Amino acid sequence: MSTGASGNTKTIVLGNRPLREYILEAIISINRDVDIVEILGRGKQIHRAVTLYNTLTSRLGDRITLKNVEIGSMLIRGRRVSYIKISIGKK
Amino acid sequence: MSTGASGNTKTIVLGNRPLREYILEAIISINRDVDIVEILGRGKQIHRAVTLYNTLTSRLGDRITLKNVEIGSMLIRGRRVSYIKISIGKK
Repeated sequence: MSTGASGNTKTIVLGNRPLREYILEAIISINRDVDIVEILGRGKQIHRAVTLYNTLTSRLGDRITLKNVEIGSMLIRGRRVSYIKISIGKK
Repeated sequence: MSTGASGNTKTIVLGNRPLREYILEAIISINRDVDIVEILGRGKQIHRAVTLYNTLTSRLGDRITLKNVEIGSMLIRGRRVSYIKISIGKK
């Protein structure tokens, strides 16, 4: 699980772990002093990034709000890979 | 390939066909009297929807602009499925 934090933004980079681990990590971040949680999904993880967002909205409901969705491609080891970056904020 | 059109919006729903067919369909729509092309990807097609968008931007460059990205979940045959809807406009 690769994660990073800059200021009050927490970035969760999806890998191959069970989705529940990332869900837990996101919920813990939201309950702490984090303003924005960024979910980054690359390649086949894009689907899981959207499912993670949907799970958070169904569990946390009014407490979070979708700030931004960014899509694009990035180079990883010389290959072009699609990605999604979902930014979630607190209300 | 399931497609729909309402007004000047063309919706392309990704299925299991090769991505190049959807790319072609999108490019033809953009060259015609269509203002917005919506790409809808559900479940595992979400990844391909983003790749389709990336391919269009690399091929058409300045001619198109990303209008909106919507993510959420919908019920399909009683199951909750994540989706992405990417709206592309002409410049």
